Amino acid sequence: MKEQKKEMKKNIVVGQSGGPTAVINASLYGVIAEGMKHGDEIGHVYGMLNGIEGFMQDRYMDLSGELGAEELEILKQTPAAYLGSCRYKLPEDLSSNFYPMIFEKLERLEIGYFFYIGGNDSMDTVSKLSRYAETIGSAIRFIGVPKTIDNDLIHTDHTPGYGSAAKYVAATVREIAMDASVYQQKAVTIVELMGRHAGWLTAASVLARKEAGDNPLLVYLPEADFDLEQFAVDVKQALDRQPNVVVCVSEGISDKDGKFICEYDNAAQTDSFGHKMLTGSGKVLEAFIRNRYGVKVRSVELNVSQRCSGMVASLTDIEEAAAAGAAGVQAALAGMTGKMIAFCRKEADGYELECRTEDVNEICNREKKFPAEWIIKNGTDIGPEFWDYARPLIQGEAKRKMKDGLPVYLYRR
Amino acid sequence: MKEQKKEMKKNIVVGQSGGPTAVINASLYGVIAEGMKHGDEIGHVYGMLNGIEGFMQDRYMDLSGELGAEELEILKQTPAAYLGSCRYKLPEDLSSNFYPMIFEKLERLEIGYFFYIGGNDSMDTVSKLSRYAETIGSAIRFIGVPKTIDNDLIHTDHTPGYGSAAKYVAATVREIAMDASVYQQKAVTIVELMGRHAGWLTAASVLARKEAGDNPLLVYLPEADFDLEQFAVDVKQALDRQPNVVVCVSEGISDKDGKFICEYDNAAQTDSFGHKMLTGSGKVLEAFIRNRYGVKVRSVELNVSQRCSGMVASLTDIEEAAAAGAAGVQAALAGMTGKMIAFCRKEADGYELECRTEDVNEICNREKKFPAEWIIKNGTDIGPEFWDYARPLIQGEAKRKMKDGLPVYLYRR
Repeated sequence: MKEQKKEMKKNIVVGQSGGPTAVINASLYGVIAEGMKHGDEIGHVYGMLNGIEGFMQDRYMDLSGELGAEELEILKQTPAAYLGSCRYKLPEDLSSNFYPMIFEKLERLEIGYFFYIGGNDSMDTVSKLSRYAETIGSAIRFIGVPKTIDNDLIHTDHTPGYGSAAKYVAATVREIAMDASVYQQKAVTIVELMGRHAGWLTAASVLARKEAGDNPLLVYLPEADFDLEQFAVDVKQALDRQPNVVVCVSEGISDKDGKFICEYDNAAQTDSFGHKMLTGSGKVLEAFIRNRYGVKVRSVELNVSQRCSGMVASLTDIEEAAAAGAAGVQAALAGMTGKMIAFCRKEADGYELECRTEDVNEICNREKKFPAEWIIKNGTDIGPEFWDYARPLIQGEAKRKMKDGLPVYLYRR
Repeated sequence: MKEQKKEMKKNIVVGQSGGPTAVINASLYGVIAEGMKHGDEIGHVYGMLNGIEGFMQDRYMDLSGELGAEELEILKQTPAAYLGSCRYKLPEDLSSNFYPMIFEKLERLEIGYFFYIGGNDSMDTVSKLSRYAETIGSAIRFIGVPKTIDNDLIHTDHTPGYGSAAKYVAATVREIAMDASVYQQKAVTIVELMGRHAGWLTAASVLARKEAGDNPLLVYLPEADFDLEQFAVDVKQALDRQPNVVVCVSEGISDKDGKFICEYDNAAQTDSFGHKMLTGSGKVLEAFIRNRYGVKVRSVELNVSQRCSGMVASLTDIEEAAAAGAAGVQAALAGMTGKMIAFCRKEADGYELECRTEDVNEICNREKKFPAEWIIKNGTDIGPEFWDYARPLIQGEAKRKMKDGLPVYLYRR
């Protein structure tokens, strides 16, 4: 009987895909820790290096064999992607010879459970692999674990990674607003935030306010049409109210014709080497306001720290990301495949969350926009519904292991 | 006798000047707390609003009267400048009518002790006021409390503000290097750091390395001549060594003729509104390397968060900044004037620091450059002497009061 059980043991393979976040490794931790709890059903927990792209080059490691308990705890608090990542789109045509190739590799490693931690594109990978598995009658189960600072996956209350990025944005914009307020002279500070199509992260900048009416006075999301002349009026009114005005904009704001504001400067964007230069929406608006009003204007791009700052990560986000990884393993063991782990906010007095599963085929390649009804004051501010939604996600700080004054993170050798 | 003592009581006035730092308020805390300890000699502790510029407009507050113990503790951990700041250069000519005007204001408030927290320019203010006081036989004592993230004041081991900025740079560059390493493809990430003339802050980026040979692979300071062609060679060699190369540069790097690299793009820097655009050295090098090698290049400007990030402040820096403020009060009470508080590293097994006083007239308007002998590998790296120098300054994290997931800071009403 015991012998038979051993024969039934299958291995896990887990990968990370797309842009890094502060908590994608917490989800990896969740998969490993939960996998190792089920030693009667699961043998090894393998990790693909650089996602499916690296796995196709036979690059993987034995996570359950190589990582000890202390290393796992550090992994849980390490930003970026421990296993490395990729941007690799699987062939649309399920009769492509890519599929027999990867399934041969999976069978050779005796994989029973496949987990992919990522965003829209990664869910597309899970969708395709699970559908192909069905066509060939493979028993391998494919589960997606959500991850994106953009918070743009449908069928889930929010995504792991968003809470930490939102906390970073709120804390940093609060500090930038304080920095901007030290002089008496009129000045405009424009903060450009990540978000090409969805404004969730830019919306988080309103959490920086210590009370209503504080900076950032103006907030612009990609979901609302941006009008340059109206922007000039908005800034003028804000400057009349107080000398220091902080404006937060998504990188992806666009006008009513769908043209990105960052493209307004295209003609002039040639560097002295004759090549096009990439300018952000913040820089374009900086030049516009300086030209229009002659006031001191500065633009600040928060850039990659939004997604990779471990120092300002949300403990709630870390724990939820780990829970999503663990829920993935549980779902797979319960026989599910072609699913993504989703978060559902429970009806309760305080904030309570539970994990459930959703059909990954419905989720992939779609985007959850910021609700239009939460955008108020003619597209310049965010309504109170968002505050209630976002505040629980940024709560708590991790007790972090430090060495020589800097955070200790886990690196692959 | 008691009555006589009361008549001898004088008030303090303290101001903040120049750019904000994470710990300029810790020095303010030090002045207030130490001042309140000497109730037999000191009456009120007044704060100038927006430095000497605001004080000339009769803008000040009674700090000892308005701030309670709990508020003082929060002030100690609040970044930026609680009192507001200014950039205001006093007349060179001590016979200017500016001086009788300000001394009349000081006398009216019964000021006995004047403290100015700031960098080079602020020490110039202390120098001029103390020299003028001497000419009129005023008993008011003028003491400078150093502050600058640039670490460029002479006659002091380092300046309050530098440790926190260095910790922020080291922690953030470590995270950016991790973010940059997740893909297999060759890529160059250029991080632009503050420092127009002095490279102390950029040098701190080497602390980001977890071990020798790690990113950032290349580090360029304003103190070494920058050559674009040599830079291309340096980057090529680094890319041959590993796919992900992180380069850290000061905003103020310049070539052998003293031309700033950020000015190389001047010709092309016109926006579509016909105005000159300001480009940083990072953006110029980004375009150059992309054009030369066709690899993926990204530039990141850490911007104002380097000086105003309270979340990643160094506890050592906070405590030293507070000690500098307190030492200022002690020096003034001991009868000194025209001095700046300076840090002296004691010869000891571990790191030990003591405060002493230096002649402010020697310090103002001069700059302490990064030592040439600490710049190694043909201007691309920093030697081990710097590590020993800088590591003690970034140690420790403040236990911070949080509310709703964000740091609680003290704001003026």
